[in-house]
Amino acid sequence: MNIPQTSFPRVVVIGGGFAGLAAVKGLRKKELQVVLIDKHNYHTFQPLLYQVATGGLEPDSIAFPLRKTINNLENYFFRLADVNKVLPEKNMIETSIGNLEYDYLIIATGSKTNFFGNKNIERHVMEMKSVPQSLNIRSLIIENFEEALLTNDLEERKALMNFVIVGGGPTGVELAGALAEMKKGILPKDYPDLDIRQMQINLIQGADKLLDAMSSKSSEKAEHFLVKLGVNVWKNIHVTDYDGKYVTTNSEETFEASTVIWAAGVQGDTIDGLQPECTIERACRFKVNEFNQVVGYDNIYAIGDVALMQTKDYERGHPMMAQPAIQQGKLAAKNILALLHGKKQKAFVYNDKGSMATIGRNKAVVDLPNWKFQGFFAWFVWMFVHLFSLIGFRNKAVVFMNWVYNYIRFDRETRLIIRPFKNKNKYSFRNNDQ
Amino acid sequence: MNIPQTSFPRVVVIGGGFAGLAAVKGLRKKELQVVLIDKHNYHTFQPLLYQVATGGLEPDSIAFPLRKTINNLENYFFRLADVNKVLPEKNMIETSIGNLEYDYLIIATGSKTNFFGNKNIERHVMEMKSVPQSLNIRSLIIENFEEALLTNDLEERKALMNFVIVGGGPTGVELAGALAEMKKGILPKDYPDLDIRQMQINLIQGADKLLDAMSSKSSEKAEHFLVKLGVNVWKNIHVTDYDGKYVTTNSEETFEASTVIWAAGVQGDTIDGLQPECTIERACRFKVNEFNQVVGYDNIYAIGDVALMQTKDYERGHPMMAQPAIQQGKLAAKNILALLHGKKQKAFVYNDKGSMATIGRNKAVVDLPNWKFQGFFAWFVWMFVHLFSLIGFRNKAVVFMNWVYNYIRFDRETRLIIRPFKNKNKYSFRNNDQ
Repeated sequence: MNIPQTSFPRVVVIGGGFAGLAAVKGLRKKELQVVLIDKHNYHTFQPLLYQVATGGLEPDSIAFPLRKTINNLENYFFRLADVNKVLPEKNMIETSIGNLEYDYLIIATGSKTNFFGNKNIERHVMEMKSVPQSLNIRSLIIENFEEALLTNDLEERKALMNFVIVGGGPTGVELAGALAEMKKGILPKDYPDLDIRQMQINLIQGADKLLDAMSSKSSEKAEHFLVKLGVNVWKNIHVTDYDGKYVTTNSEETFEASTVIWAAGVQGDTIDGLQPECTIERACRFKVNEFNQVVGYDNIYAIGDVALMQTKDYERGHPMMAQPAIQQGKLAAKNILALLHGKKQKAFVYNDKGSMATIGRNKAVVDLPNWKFQGFFAWFVWMFVHLFSLIGFRNKAVVFMNWVYNYIRFDRETRLIIRPFKNKNKYSFRNNDQ
Repeated sequence: MNIPQTSFPRVVVIGGGFAGLAAVKGLRKKELQVVLIDKHNYHTFQPLLYQVATGGLEPDSIAFPLRKTINNLENYFFRLADVNKVLPEKNMIETSIGNLEYDYLIIATGSKTNFFGNKNIERHVMEMKSVPQSLNIRSLIIENFEEALLTNDLEERKALMNFVIVGGGPTGVELAGALAEMKKGILPKDYPDLDIRQMQINLIQGADKLLDAMSSKSSEKAEHFLVKLGVNVWKNIHVTDYDGKYVTTNSEETFEASTVIWAAGVQGDTIDGLQPECTIERACRFKVNEFNQVVGYDNIYAIGDVALMQTKDYERGHPMMAQPAIQQGKLAAKNILALLHGKKQKAFVYNDKGSMATIGRNKAVVDLPNWKFQGFFAWFVWMFVHLFSLIGFRNKAVVFMNWVYNYIRFDRETRLIIRPFKNKNKYSFRNNDQ
């Protein structure tokens, strides 16, 4: 991998998401060598992927080149690689570009889609965990409408215009809202020769409320906003299968739909090599102690979505979202520095800053620890929190400009198909992360 | 294709480039049915593709959704399709989504890369005629540097950092300048562990001067600016072969390079079906009369790059660039309307507004009919002409913002690899327009 051996201890960080970047930042300008490894050369701001998928934002504006985060830092290295395995007995990782020894390892590989073992679903649905996947959804939506124009078979046309979103968490809710806005503002103008009323947006939730990690008031309001936008909300229903044409559920309800987007669950994106019987628990996350050390290993930390830290308040681990990841990343960096200086580590305490979700063009629901509110003002708060969380001035500016433009013009202009055409090789690009 | 038959004559326009869009615009709100067909769902502002290829702009900002150009127009249709053949005896075209009859046909299919029959070159070089191709170049540049980091073989590393651009027209010159700016401003910061001096940019021109359609003064200045930026300019040399590793030429000079970008020539992107013996001439363009009617056909027009109109002043046809295309598109629309109203057609007279090319971050050369100037002010003129030629307010604003940011910060942030990795399947994505 051509990383020079220095007299400083080497910390290897796998993954440049929220957790990994926070850790790298905390290890800046210390007497350390830091190596950041990621399979992409950019950080993805995942909370806005749904806007890329629905044509509101260009992909470059929610991504940030990882090399820029280590510009001008001595003894900092970035490598673009897939990590295949950890060899803890050798303090070494195996990657697609060779092996690398570490003194400390921080695993911040995040999460991947959880299909709960259903291969048929995995093969036919769309995922939305990465920039390329979001671009695939964007292309598919447009291609479906182009195809719907051409058919005179009413059933086929309805299936092409039927969008099923599985999972009523923030991702599903935000995506459903964005699709509903497309149906209202954009598609009727773009497709005057189609009856856009035939477009259906079905949001299927297994639990008895949407956004079930949020307050009842926010759940209810979110559902209310979505229904007003024309989304069909289905609760207490589990999708059992999808063959590329029909969605079957554990109820009598079935759906004929060309596009099914799976936002029903995530699991830790773990790496092989650590003793699975003791370390991988619930939803495939590495079990860690209160310092984020992987159980059984003193010099291996797991942080963010891939880590499962069970505490009194969080018996099933912390929520798999940005805030716990950032906070664990910061603390893991501090704890490694503490160990190096012979000091004591500090236990992680999650500072819950709240959660939020947006619905459509000007509504949101926000749960702060001491204040829960919904509607237009919540949307305003949502917008500024997301804008200021984006990394990089250019990204903030481009996103802001697009939002202002889209808001004023009821429009979204980034609706180019730059991914493979569906009709050339129908399923070739699904679940393909390139 | 589900286009309704109306009592109005149907004009079919193939291609939504500069020429096709100008024609469609000229046919607006007339007693006509207009069908625009393109293989992409967006218009591409080709003059700025080189900035997408070098990470200065996001692809969405130089493209415009074609459906937006016909929003709110009655009896206007857009179809996403490949046109395979014209059947002039039936007044019909064959496309990937079915056949369509026309009363008038406007062929505005533009141009494609000309490899002059060399299959080996075609297989191994990169093209830059479309958004996906430009994204491929962007990915390849970054992947080469990531790979160069990993090798200890000096020859291999040099080849990975050797960029050969074949063709010294505006495309080659602008691309060489942009790469040279990357070498100066961005790559040393991103790759502190690489010796960026080993990066070579070779610009190979067959003629005895760069930009040979421009004035001698502009050619000389362009070369001077490039050499000052560190580009190796080779003149009077023809590339004869490239096997993926070695570029051979008709001189003793050879180059070992991982990346060869072919900007050496274009040819008309013609469609089958018209009598080739009478209609396709030089560089595969349809021979047209002074009204842009394809020779031998009264109701088929060809405009822009794909049309060859030989006049006293332009014996080899008009230059294959935006201005003649726009002007011919406008006139073809007027001439069709004239025919429909039993009036006389007007002959095309090219109004040469001049040409320009930019070199690096703040130099350009501009040839106006009565004024030729080069340097910083020329760059300023170049910038504003391009900004105001972009279609759409959002595009203008995003491009402007990126330019200001990049200029002030000596930076380019849109350098994500969102196309297939080279090392996964080495040449799989080359010359693949998807």
